[in-house]
Amino acid sequence: MENFKVRFVPLGGVVGVTKNMYVYELYQGDVLQDILLVDCGIGFPQEKELGVDFVIPDISYLVDKVDKIRGLLLTHGHEDHIGAVPYLYDKLGKPQIFTSKLTAMFVANKVKEFAISPDITVVQYGKDYSFGGFQARFIPVTHSIPDTMHILIKTPAGSFYHGPDYKLDLTPPYGSPPDFYEIVKAGKDGLLCVMSDALGAERDGLTLSESIVGQTFEDEMRKTKGKFIMTTFSSNISRIRQCCEAAIKFNRSIIFLGRSMRENTRLSSEIGYLPIPESLMGKEEDAARLPPNKICLIVAGSQGQYDSALYKIARKQNKNIRIKSGDKVIFSSDPIPGNENEVYALIEELSLQGAEVIYSDIQEQLHASGHGSREDLKFLMRFTHPKYLLPIGGNIRHQREYQKLAVDLGYSKENVLLLNEGETMWFMKNDAEAGETVETKNIYVDAYGVGDVGNVVLRDRKTLSSEGMVVALIIVDGRGAMVARPRILSRGFVFEKNEDALYEDAAKLIEKTIRPNTERILDMTALKRETAKILENFFYEARGRRPLVVVDTIEV
Amino acid sequence: MENFKVRFVPLGGVVGVTKNMYVYELYQGDVLQDILLVDCGIGFPQEKELGVDFVIPDISYLVDKVDKIRGLLLTHGHEDHIGAVPYLYDKLGKPQIFTSKLTAMFVANKVKEFAISPDITVVQYGKDYSFGGFQARFIPVTHSIPDTMHILIKTPAGSFYHGPDYKLDLTPPYGSPPDFYEIVKAGKDGLLCVMSDALGAERDGLTLSESIVGQTFEDEMRKTKGKFIMTTFSSNISRIRQCCEAAIKFNRSIIFLGRSMRENTRLSSEIGYLPIPESLMGKEEDAARLPPNKICLIVAGSQGQYDSALYKIARKQNKNIRIKSGDKVIFSSDPIPGNENEVYALIEELSLQGAEVIYSDIQEQLHASGHGSREDLKFLMRFTHPKYLLPIGGNIRHQREYQKLAVDLGYSKENVLLLNEGETMWFMKNDAEAGETVETKNIYVDAYGVGDVGNVVLRDRKTLSSEGMVVALIIVDGRGAMVARPRILSRGFVFEKNEDALYEDAAKLIEKTIRPNTERILDMTALKRETAKILENFFYEARGRRPLVVVDTIEV
Repeated sequence: MENFKVRFVPLGGVVGVTKNMYVYELYQGDVLQDILLVDCGIGFPQEKELGVDFVIPDISYLVDKVDKIRGLLLTHGHEDHIGAVPYLYDKLGKPQIFTSKLTAMFVANKVKEFAISPDITVVQYGKDYSFGGFQARFIPVTHSIPDTMHILIKTPAGSFYHGPDYKLDLTPPYGSPPDFYEIVKAGKDGLLCVMSDALGAERDGLTLSESIVGQTFEDEMRKTKGKFIMTTFSSNISRIRQCCEAAIKFNRSIIFLGRSMRENTRLSSEIGYLPIPESLMGKEEDAARLPPNKICLIVAGSQGQYDSALYKIARKQNKNIRIKSGDKVIFSSDPIPGNENEVYALIEELSLQGAEVIYSDIQEQLHASGHGSREDLKFLMRFTHPKYLLPIGGNIRHQREYQKLAVDLGYSKENVLLLNEGETMWFMKNDAEAGETVETKNIYVDAYGVGDVGNVVLRDRKTLSSEGMVVALIIVDGRGAMVARPRILSRGFVFEKNEDALYEDAAKLIEKTIRPNTERILDMTALKRETAKILENFFYEARGRRPLVVVDTIEV
Repeated sequence: MENFKVRFVPLGGVVGVTKNMYVYELYQGDVLQDILLVDCGIGFPQEKELGVDFVIPDISYLVDKVDKIRGLLLTHGHEDHIGAVPYLYDKLGKPQIFTSKLTAMFVANKVKEFAISPDITVVQYGKDYSFGGFQARFIPVTHSIPDTMHILIKTPAGSFYHGPDYKLDLTPPYGSPPDFYEIVKAGKDGLLCVMSDALGAERDGLTLSESIVGQTFEDEMRKTKGKFIMTTFSSNISRIRQCCEAAIKFNRSIIFLGRSMRENTRLSSEIGYLPIPESLMGKEEDAARLPPNKICLIVAGSQGQYDSALYKIARKQNKNIRIKSGDKVIFSSDPIPGNENEVYALIEELSLQGAEVIYSDIQEQLHASGHGSREDLKFLMRFTHPKYLLPIGGNIRHQREYQKLAVDLGYSKENVLLLNEGETMWFMKNDAEAGETVETKNIYVDAYGVGDVGNVVLRDRKTLSSEGMVVALIIVDGRGAMVARPRILSRGFVFEKNEDALYEDAAKLIEKTIRPNTERILDMTALKRETAKILENFFYEARGRRPLVVVDTIEV
């Protein structure tokens, strides 16, 4: 009867950084007893610039065993750990959710517009919770959002320390430092495997404390004669609070801009995590009438996102807020790899309008990563000293670097388990072996729905992003006869203004193609296809590129 | 009956870095019950260049209560923690000594020539030891010598964590990392005060792991065609072992030079801390016959000490070892403040003879401090989170920096207790207040004895060191008549070779002073005194300096 084992199934997060979702299954013999889920986040795939907003975990694997799910534990309130709850909660059989205070608040708010009402328990620390054969104990740690937790998961087959996103912040600006006693005690009592954040495994040293940034805000605000504008991730409540505290000190009205920024700060205020005196709570309209040195704007859009609050300010689309000389814009977050162009374009734009723009390339201590660096990661290994280590929340490069660190600490390579998404591990008393791989696919979500973006669409978007697009419009009359010179537009291909001749030639080519055939165009579809093919070849010969060519007809 | 309190008395170490010795006294009401001593080290005072070898703690305060001493606990084997044992052991009433394996070995060896035989117990970890009303628990930590410990001292008046010299080395080359569980458990159970190493409080970040240095040795040895010569503190057994391991890899014979180096390595070998194959154990004489690329010399004298093994090599006084082009000398220790001149002179000398000299100014990762930097110190604060903190083992500057760190972590300044030597604290349940100051003086030890170097001698040495010395020799015949021109020598005053005229004038002045008086010198003492006075004035007028002037007579 003692024949217990645990299967660990990463449905995401393990090599993709985001889309975190982990399945712990407890078996007795070959019989599945209980399932415990940890996190349920959205992912930001490489295709995100192609109009895919995000991806969610593929839970096909769980579909026929939702009755065994004993709980869904959420470690912290970042989108890549909780964002998929609205999409998957019902499909998972509406499991009870266990999480911390702020995270509970975020989740409850998130599901509102989805008409689902999850059962959420705010956990207490220093207490064991039972989930069938699993026992879980929540441990407060530090990250870039308050109320982040690690989870000690005890099972008859051994104990696991689930340790996603964290840094060892000894001086967090709010809340307590990591509970070192609980962490080390977990190690003392014996751990079979530690699943550890590995995202910072390429960075030397310890990650800076979040509180470093507060001093920087204060110093910069002191020197600012105009408006003070700070942008960061809207979930980084600690940082936002530090900026607010500086604003309060200098008696500046605080104005939050951007939907997520307003929502998150409102929720945090409600539970006392963001105390701002009523007199300094500003509205967007106030920005137009207050003296610039009485304004502190805290704005979404730090990644240069199209149409974000900061983007609109930079593009002069916000009528209440115009950048003037003397204003200062602080980017308190680094560009996520892939977003550099958008961010630097924004910086350029803001600078041109007279703002002094401060970002981490020119000023250190503006942004402290929320993820531990090598020394943080090594400390956790030493604190917990499990038999196995399993890096999560990074990519393959981070996994490998994490493995090297573990080897430096005396682990054998084999005891550092590097899994791809869907690859599983069996854990039994004091041992681990690879299990069958679970098939997963990306479920795309965009503004229009879940899963309706297929591969064809993505391929087009891919082309668009790398080669640009040419649109040829053929203008016909009611009888289908071409009545004007075809109109050619392009975006992202070659710069139109300098290429009049090229487009002129293309238009002539279309005329030449169509005219000789017939006065009356009968098969519009065939015509479009043929014209597109001719244009594709033309542009390739002329410029060596293959833009996406779209041909359409307009009847006048 | 519950009226317990503890008096903490630092007899040294608290602001002087070295000469560590701490007294814990347990009182019930006003009645002293038990005394527990921690460490008993020598000090290296500022006057060391004046011929004082070292100082030892002044134990006058303890003299009339040695019967209450229940034990002497030694935290690690460095001289500034154990070096005074031979001088003070008997005077302390021969208390039982409790310490770790290597430290026990060092102490036992040290006392041999003093004809005392202390009772030494090698402690076990994870076990409570009773010393009257005190209970002590030894906790392994990491430093630059193996077997370093911290001590949890439990009393009816509260618990203390005595945490001298340490760094949080997660990858010590030998031995285990700090026992984090014991440390955080001590904090969890509640601590009234933590006495913490503060020496690294000015350095940012975490201190490098000792194991970094091993890789550097290997890299440097690989590139060395001639002799490989490494110098460091002879107590830094971990580092010496790493150098030996590199030598073994490259099949070089290992030759230890210098008394302390030979002694310490022999003792460490005996307990298995320094395994070297018999075939590679070399002797000094072997250096003359082995090919240079088969030699690894590990040499005392890293501080440029006069007459040390390295000093002799640099000054070509070692007939077996001559520096040649292709040799490499590695200084794997930084100059202790005050020793820079000697060290750089040695580097210069060795370079002139053709050696490539590597030291930390030109190559990082040659020397990792044994003491924790700011982040190490903050970790210990967070691990133990006592009510009070008390920095030890630094100077006043380090104490202040340590206090700042504690304030960053939320301590109030008042709860960080900054003591001078002899200043005491009373601790009672959950509270601390300053006690009466205990008078201490420096007890000087030099090659000739303990305590026989008085203030006059020190003043002379001081003058010598800053102004130099002039010796005038008056040559007289058997009748006391001056029979030759007085001979004048000087050192450290003005450079003799360029000052022939000056010394010539001085000699003439002596002749003029003596001749007119009498053919026969009767009162030699008066003559010497008078001549000295005249010369002092002469040199002061001529050069504006006051060298120490010594006049003596030689009878021919």
